Amino acid sequence: MSAGPIRLSPGAHTALRPATAARITGGFWAARRRVNAEVSLPQGPDRLERAGNLANLRAAAGAAPAQSGFRGDFPFQDSDVHKWLEAASWQLADGGGGPAEEELSRQVERLAGMVAAAQAEDGYLQTYYQLGPDARRWAEPHWGHELYCAGHLLQAAVAHRRATGGDGLLDVAVRCADLIGTRFGPGKDETVCGHPEIETALVELYRETGDRRHLDLAAYFVERRGQGSLGDGPADGAAGPRPGAPYWQDHVRVRDATAVAGHAVRQLYLLAGAADVAAETGDAGLRDALVRLWEDMAATKTYLTGGVGSRHDLESFGDAYELPPDRAYAETCAAVAAIHFGWRMALLTGDARYSDLVERTLFNGFASGMSLDGERWLYVNPLQVRQDEEGRKATAGDRSPHRTPWFRCACCPPNVMRLLASLPHYMASGDAEGLQLHQYASGSYEAGGGAVRVGTGYPWEGRIAVVVDQVPKDTDWTLSLRIPHWARTYEVTVGGEPVAEQAEHGWLRLRRRWRPGETVVLSLPLDARLTRPDPRVDAVRGCAAIERGPLVYCLEQPDQPAGLRLDEIALVAGAALHHEHRPELLGGVTVITTPALRRTAWRDGWWPYRNGGGSGGDTGGTQTSAPVRVTAIPYYAWANREPGAMRVWIPV
Amino acid sequence: MSAGPIRLSPGAHTALRPATAARITGGFWAARRRVNAEVSLPQGPDRLERAGNLANLRAAAGAAPAQSGFRGDFPFQDSDVHKWLEAASWQLADGGGGPAEEELSRQVERLAGMVAAAQAEDGYLQTYYQLGPDARRWAEPHWGHELYCAGHLLQAAVAHRRATGGDGLLDVAVRCADLIGTRFGPGKDETVCGHPEIETALVELYRETGDRRHLDLAAYFVERRGQGSLGDGPADGAAGPRPGAPYWQDHVRVRDATAVAGHAVRQLYLLAGAADVAAETGDAGLRDALVRLWEDMAATKTYLTGGVGSRHDLESFGDAYELPPDRAYAETCAAVAAIHFGWRMALLTGDARYSDLVERTLFNGFASGMSLDGERWLYVNPLQVRQDEEGRKATAGDRSPHRTPWFRCACCPPNVMRLLASLPHYMASGDAEGLQLHQYASGSYEAGGGAVRVGTGYPWEGRIAVVVDQVPKDTDWTLSLRIPHWARTYEVTVGGEPVAEQAEHGWLRLRRRWRPGETVVLSLPLDARLTRPDPRVDAVRGCAAIERGPLVYCLEQPDQPAGLRLDEIALVAGAALHHEHRPELLGGVTVITTPALRRTAWRDGWWPYRNGGGSGGDTGGTQTSAPVRVTAIPYYAWANREPGAMRVWIPV
Repeated sequence: MSAGPIRLSPGAHTALRPATAARITGGFWAARRRVNAEVSLPQGPDRLERAGNLANLRAAAGAAPAQSGFRGDFPFQDSDVHKWLEAASWQLADGGGGPAEEELSRQVERLAGMVAAAQAEDGYLQTYYQLGPDARRWAEPHWGHELYCAGHLLQAAVAHRRATGGDGLLDVAVRCADLIGTRFGPGKDETVCGHPEIETALVELYRETGDRRHLDLAAYFVERRGQGSLGDGPADGAAGPRPGAPYWQDHVRVRDATAVAGHAVRQLYLLAGAADVAAETGDAGLRDALVRLWEDMAATKTYLTGGVGSRHDLESFGDAYELPPDRAYAETCAAVAAIHFGWRMALLTGDARYSDLVERTLFNGFASGMSLDGERWLYVNPLQVRQDEEGRKATAGDRSPHRTPWFRCACCPPNVMRLLASLPHYMASGDAEGLQLHQYASGSYEAGGGAVRVGTGYPWEGRIAVVVDQVPKDTDWTLSLRIPHWARTYEVTVGGEPVAEQAEHGWLRLRRRWRPGETVVLSLPLDARLTRPDPRVDAVRGCAAIERGPLVYCLEQPDQPAGLRLDEIALVAGAALHHEHRPELLGGVTVITTPALRRTAWRDGWWPYRNGGGSGGDTGGTQTSAPVRVTAIPYYAWANREPGAMRVWIPV
Repeated sequence: MSAGPIRLSPGAHTALRPATAARITGGFWAARRRVNAEVSLPQGPDRLERAGNLANLRAAAGAAPAQSGFRGDFPFQDSDVHKWLEAASWQLADGGGGPAEEELSRQVERLAGMVAAAQAEDGYLQTYYQLGPDARRWAEPHWGHELYCAGHLLQAAVAHRRATGGDGLLDVAVRCADLIGTRFGPGKDETVCGHPEIETALVELYRETGDRRHLDLAAYFVERRGQGSLGDGPADGAAGPRPGAPYWQDHVRVRDATAVAGHAVRQLYLLAGAADVAAETGDAGLRDALVRLWEDMAATKTYLTGGVGSRHDLESFGDAYELPPDRAYAETCAAVAAIHFGWRMALLTGDARYSDLVERTLFNGFASGMSLDGERWLYVNPLQVRQDEEGRKATAGDRSPHRTPWFRCACCPPNVMRLLASLPHYMASGDAEGLQLHQYASGSYEAGGGAVRVGTGYPWEGRIAVVVDQVPKDTDWTLSLRIPHWARTYEVTVGGEPVAEQAEHGWLRLRRRWRPGETVVLSLPLDARLTRPDPRVDAVRGCAAIERGPLVYCLEQPDQPAGLRLDEIALVAGAALHHEHRPELLGGVTVITTPALRRTAWRDGWWPYRNGGGSGGDTGGTQTSAPVRVTAIPYYAWANREPGAMRVWIPV
C-alpha cells in the first residue's frame, strides 16, 4: 500500500502501481528536501499567520472577533493552509524523528485543529464566505473556489491520515465531502467549480475511505465539465476581459478535447483528476483523451524546462508552438500540476515518456520555483529576463521574475512543499512483473514484490548503481530502468557484466532470476549538448539551449565576464562545451563553459528595423563580433544572486 | 486658425502650427474616410443604443426609468458617446453637404442633447455613478475613469463648437470643467485619474475658451502624476494582479521618466497631454522628457506596423525589445494615441521623424483597426496569427484577432472614427517660413501664409505633385516636403527641373520666390524591400518583413497556394520581389509576390526540441524544402476574408 499521495484501490485499472515504500536518502533531491523540511515547512505557519489565513480560521471558529472581516485578497486563502497541512503531513510520513519532527507534528495538529474548529455545523468550510457580508455560498461558481478549497482540504486530510493514522482531519473532510455530495450532482446543482481540484481529491478520498460515492461524484464532475455550466463567465473586475469558457475548460468535455487550453493549472488539475477517475473506472475513452491531451501539451505547448502556460494573460496555455521565453508564465503551480498529471499517466499506461517529462519538469521548471535557501519563491518561471532596469522597476508583484518570501496569492509555495515532501512517491512503481525505476535518486524503493537500493550522484554524475535487495523467490523478476529521451547511448552492467537487453520505448527491462545483493550499474552519458527548437517555435528561432543530462542550463549575468551583456552573446555551432563541478557555487553545481562571440547590436538611430535585402545571418546593419567565453549554470539555480539578465535560448 | 483638434493659442511655444485649412479630396485616405462617413459614423448611434450607452444617458436625465440601473460592464461607457460626438463633429466640420450630412447633423444634435440633459445640477456627468447604488463619486480614482470621461466630453464639446459654432455642448463642458477645477488641485483633492485624458482635453478647452485656469489645471495634473497619489492601486477583481504604479504612470514624474511604461493608451494619452502643456507653457524640461520618451518608445518598443503595447497582460508596454508578433497587443486605441502624441511632438519640435512614425502607424497599425467595409473592428493588431483551430476557438472576446461589429469595451471604434474624421489636420503645418507637408494625400492645404494642392496615387504610386497655389507676395517662401525614413533615394523637380536642394533630417526645404501655379513633383522609390529587425528583437530573429513605401506587408492564408501552411514558408534572401496592382482585391491593393521555400517542420514525436550540435540554419532535425511562390498583401487589409493564419515576419 502506497504511503504517498496515490493509493490505488485494489481493482484499479492501471498498468503500474505506486511503490509500497520509498525513501530518498541522499543526493540532489535529498538536499532539496532537507531545505524543505528544515526551512520552508517550519516557516509555513508563521507565513500563514502574517498573511491572515490563520486569523480567518480563528474568526470563522468564533475564537476571535470576526468584525475585522476576511483577511487576504482571494476567496481561496484557506487552501494555502490545507496545502501546507498536506505538505507537512507527507514530511511526517517520511519520518526521521527528532525535535524538528516533533515540532512539525505539533504545528500540524495545531493548524488541523484550527481547520476543524472553523468548520460549520453542516460541514461547510470556507472562511471567505463564512466571514463574508452575506450568504453567497455556492452562488459564485466562477470565482468562488469553494470546491477547489474543499479539494485541498480533502487532500490534506488524506495525507494527515496516511501520515499519522489519526481520523480528526479526515472526519472534517468526510463531513465536507458529504455536504458537497448532498448539494451537487445530477438533478441537483449541476454547475462545476471554476477551478478544478475537487476531482482528484474526491478520488483519493474514495481510495482512503472506500466510499464509492466520492468516486462517482468525481466522475460526474469530470463528465459535467465542458457542458456549459460555467460558459464564458463574468469578467473578474471592470478592466479585465471575460475569461471565456476555455479558461476553466468548460468549452468541451474532457473526453472530446483534442488540445489543452485555458488556465494551465485549472487544465492540469482537471486532467490529473480525470486520470484518477480513469484509473479507478477503467474508462478507455477518457484514457485515450488524456493520452491525446498530454501529447498536445508535450509536443506543442511545453517549454524546454518542462514549464507550461505561455501567457501571463489569464495564466493560460497559448496556441501550439507559442512559447515565448521572456513572457513565459510557466507558473510554479503549473509545473506541480504537470507532474501530478504526468505521474498518473505513467501509472495508467506504463509508458516511459510520461516520467521522462516529469523528470525534466522536476529538475528545471519545478526546482526553479524555490530558492536555494528555501525562503523565497518564484511564481513565474521565464526562460529569459532582459537587462532592463526600467522594465524591472515597472514589473511588480507576484508575477515578476524575482524571488519573494511569500505571495499575495500564495498558491505556489505550499505546492512546492507538498511535492518535495511527497517526492519519494514519484520515483518508482511496481507491477506483476517487477519494479520500475522512473527517476534516479539515492534511496530505497519497494514495489512489484521486490526491493532495491539506488546510489548515484545523478544528475551531476551519470553512474546509477541499483542493488537488488529483495526479490520473489524462485521466479523471474523484472527490474525496469527508464532510459531518458536525451540519452543517445548508455551502458548497463549486472554484476559487472554488460547485458544483452536493449531499451524499448524508454524502458530497459532486465528480466532474470535475481540473487539478492546483485548490483546493476546504469551509466548515462553526461556530455553537455546543444538543443534546437522545432522551427515552428517562432520565438526562439536561430537559437540553441545548453543541456546536460536532465538539466537545462542558462546564462546568468553574474557568471559572465564583466561588462558583457547577455544580448550580445552568440554561441558558436560546434564549439566545445566544457563542464566543471563547482562545489562552492550555488550550493554545488556543474557549470558549462564554452567559447562564444560578443556581437554588437545596432546602437544608433530611433528605429530598430532596417532595409536589408542582403544574404545570411539574422542581423543586417553594422555589427562586429569578438571572441568571449561564457559560463552556463543549471536553470533551477538562477535568480539566487543579485537580480540581472538571464537567458536559456541563445542565438547561434 | 486650425479647424482641427489642435488650435494653438497665439503665444504657443511650438516650432510649427497646424494648417489653417486642410481638405483631403482623393486617394487612399479619401476612400477610408468615405467609408467612415458613409458607414461607420452613421452606424454609431445605433451601436450606442444597443450597447446601452444612450439608455444610461436617458436614465440619468430622468427621461427613462432608472430602476434597471447602469447598462454595460465599464464605468467609462459614456466616453463612447463623447468620442462618437467628437468624430461626427469633425466630419461635419469637413463639410460636404447633402442629405447624409444633414442626417449626421441631426444625430449629433440629438446625442449632444442627451448628454446635456444627463448632466447633474452641479455639472457632474458620469452615468455610471449617477445611476450607481451609492455616492461613490470621486472616491474611486483608480478605476472610476471620471476625469477620463470628462476629458472626452471636453474634446467632443470643442469639436462640436469648431464644427458648428454652437455653444450648447461647450457650455456643458465648461460646467463640467469648472466642477473639476473646484474639486481638484493643490490643497484640494490631489489625486489624479487612473486613466489620463483630462490633460489634453483641458488644454484644448483653454485654447477654445481662453480661460487660463484650464491650462493650469492640466499642467497640475501632468506634474502631480508620478508622485504616488495612485500607487500600486487595488486589483481589479479577485483573480487579477495589482496593476502597480507604472500601470497608470504613477511611478515617476513625466519630466523625470526615461522610458515609456505601463498601460500603453494611458501612457500615450498622458504624453499627448504633456506635449500640449509644454506647447502652451514653453516648459523646456517637460519637452526634453517627451523627446526622450518618444525615442525610447520608437527605438525599443514599437512594432514595424507602428503599433505599440507588447503585452496583453495589463495592455501594457513591455521591456525594451520585447516585441512578440503573435502576442502583440498593439491596441487600435494605442495607435491612435501614438499618432496624437507624435503629431504634437512634430508641432512642438518641427522634427520630421515624428511624422515619419505617424505615417507608418497610420498606414499599418491604425488602418488595420477598421475593416474595409467600415462595419467591423479589431481591438488588438497582432503581427502573426497561427493556423490553430483549437487556439482560435479558445480565444474569445474583444482581444481576439477577429473583427467584431462592436466591443463590450468599445473604446476603439469611435477612436478610429474621430481620427479618420479629423485626418486632414495631420497632413500639413506652417511656420513663419512657409508650409510643411508631413503626409501625402491628394487635397488642399493652407498654412504658413500659403496654400498648396497635392495630387498623388500614394501609397500605391510614388509620384506626388504639389501645386503652389498661393504664396506671400514679393518674398521668399519655403515649401518643405518630408522625405520618409525608408526612402533611400528620391527625385524632385520644380516646374519640371531637378532641384539642387538635399533633404536634411528628413525635410527637403524648397525656399524660393514662387510663382502661383508652379508645380513641384516628388518621386519616392516604391520598390518592395525586405526589412530586418535589430538583433535584440528576439522574437523575430532570423526573419524579415516585406515593405513597400510606407506599407508593411503580410502573408495571409487565402493568397497562398492551396495546402501551403504559413509556418512552412521561408523567404529567400536576395530573391526578386514583384509588385502588381490588383484593383479587384481587397478594395484595390498592390500585392507583392516572391519565390520562397516550403520547408517541412518536424512532424514526429512528442517533444519539440532536439539534440543538434550541428552547424547552420535554425532547424536541426530532418527537413526538406521545395520552391513555392507566395503573395503578400498590405497589412492593413488583413482579416477581411475568412479567418486564417497571417504573418508579417517570415523566416529567411
